[in-house]
Amino acid sequence: MAQWIGFIGLGIMGRPMAKHLLRAGYPLVVHNRSRPPVEELQALGARAASSPRQVIEEADVVITMLPNSPDVELVALGAGGLIEAAAPGKLLVDMSTISPLVSQRVAAELKKQGMEMLDAPVSGGEKGAIEATLSIMVGGDRAAFDRTLPILQAMGKTVTHLGPIGSGGFVKLANQIIVAINLTAIAEGLVLAAKAGLDLELAIKALAGGLAGSRCLEQKTPNYLTHSFQPGFKVDLHYKDLGLIMEAARGLGVPLPVTALVQELFSALRARGRGGLDHSGIITLLEDLAGVQVGRRP
Amino acid sequence: MAQWIGFIGLGIMGRPMAKHLLRAGYPLVVHNRSRPPVEELQALGARAASSPRQVIEEADVVITMLPNSPDVELVALGAGGLIEAAAPGKLLVDMSTISPLVSQRVAAELKKQGMEMLDAPVSGGEKGAIEATLSIMVGGDRAAFDRTLPILQAMGKTVTHLGPIGSGGFVKLANQIIVAINLTAIAEGLVLAAKAGLDLELAIKALAGGLAGSRCLEQKTPNYLTHSFQPGFKVDLHYKDLGLIMEAARGLGVPLPVTALVQELFSALRARGRGGLDHSGIITLLEDLAGVQVGRRP
Repeated sequence: MAQWIGFIGLGIMGRPMAKHLLRAGYPLVVHNRSRPPVEELQALGARAASSPRQVIEEADVVITMLPNSPDVELVALGAGGLIEAAAPGKLLVDMSTISPLVSQRVAAELKKQGMEMLDAPVSGGEKGAIEATLSIMVGGDRAAFDRTLPILQAMGKTVTHLGPIGSGGFVKLANQIIVAINLTAIAEGLVLAAKAGLDLELAIKALAGGLAGSRCLEQKTPNYLTHSFQPGFKVDLHYKDLGLIMEAARGLGVPLPVTALVQELFSALRARGRGGLDHSGIITLLEDLAGVQVGRRP
Repeated sequence: MAQWIGFIGLGIMGRPMAKHLLRAGYPLVVHNRSRPPVEELQALGARAASSPRQVIEEADVVITMLPNSPDVELVALGAGGLIEAAAPGKLLVDMSTISPLVSQRVAAELKKQGMEMLDAPVSGGEKGAIEATLSIMVGGDRAAFDRTLPILQAMGKTVTHLGPIGSGGFVKLANQIIVAINLTAIAEGLVLAAKAGLDLELAIKALAGGLAGSRCLEQKTPNYLTHSFQPGFKVDLHYKDLGLIMEAARGLGVPLPVTALVQELFSALRARGRGGLDHSGIITLLEDLAGVQVGRRP
């Protein structure tokens, strides 16, 4: 019989991920602050636990999928947390996007009890979670990675081991730097073209064919052409990631002037009540500044 | 017999472009400030003219490929310039990357004499000019574009009509905004990853497979991996284009906060004596700030 797996954090991402594990035949013990998703998973055969500590007592591998660094710290190191039953042979796989410096600190605490940890943040969003096509970026002990690979492959398509603990998180943060800045770059370019009176579709076509082409431009072109910014990946979440990026950068001593400015622009977009837009909606802030709407003649 | 074409500006780009026209069978009359390239073209069958005015007297279509806006203004509107022999049926095709606002002003002046103008900046660099694979972005009168198309196709592979005069230039500037900012975004992401101790090749591979992927990242990966930044497209030239972008943006009333910051970073790179690097060399400035070299452990 397959080994028991624990799953803590049954939100928009965690719920479909946990279901893939059940479908793959792993017996599952789950924990979540609110009850309804727990009951949903119970109906599919999962067992419920009343605390993270109880989860780790019943499963050797525990997966966490939580909003931010303090949530992971609480679940791992707080009262009733994993640390209380940490032991050799037990493994935490944290798939949340949190500060890699926090991942390193939590891992060090667990290690004192002989327990291993992997950081394994994902890219691909709700769609990737539902379709089990996530890209999973993993940091931590190589042997721990190897024995976890079949479990991760039940939830994702591309699973990459990138180095020691924190490596998954750092690559995820680098990814979020490039995406946030490139979306803002596209916004500035398109707003200039719009105010110059250019046809948006022709301009995007010309840009996409040259060195300005990117997966961001390709994926977000329908948003720009229809001027609709339903998420997708929310501005609020990318803003949270920009905070993690700047925190990690300060910790490592890496000045990031452009990321810092883009963080302020995302902050301005949220101040205007648009934190729920897709992150490509950053273009609406540039439109406000220039007094133009992309896709319409000035 | 094919119509005479004038060609003014026989630099790194103009020389190979003019040769393609000769090869395509067009009789050519050329003008250039320095003599050697004129003699080179004469040896291939071109006729030499002593001034822009003499060029336009002998050819109905005149192509210019000059460094910047003031050069085009001088050749078109200055003493001994095209304006002195401008007449209906004559056409200026300016393929330089200059301010689109200047293109519009020059076009308006020529129009007073009944002469048409297209702005047709190119993307693809010296390699594209030599191989006749340039992407040519054209603005101006549609009928003038249609009759010029065979001439442009002798020098480029993708020729796109984007709208009225200035449209080619505006799309070229939007392209240069996105490329400069995205190269800086990649630099910030990779420097963070490097200082965190990540393997550069693994990190780039993970980034390229996700939403951070772009033609910039793809084309410049060899530069990052070998830490060599031979041009390619020089920082000095991209800095010139960033100046044109900010000038055009001011004229149109388009605030470009990220472009403005990236312009300052390119300026800092030049102040460090690195204006001759490929524009992907912007990463060396971020490396200096963070005290790390990408591709080496911190």
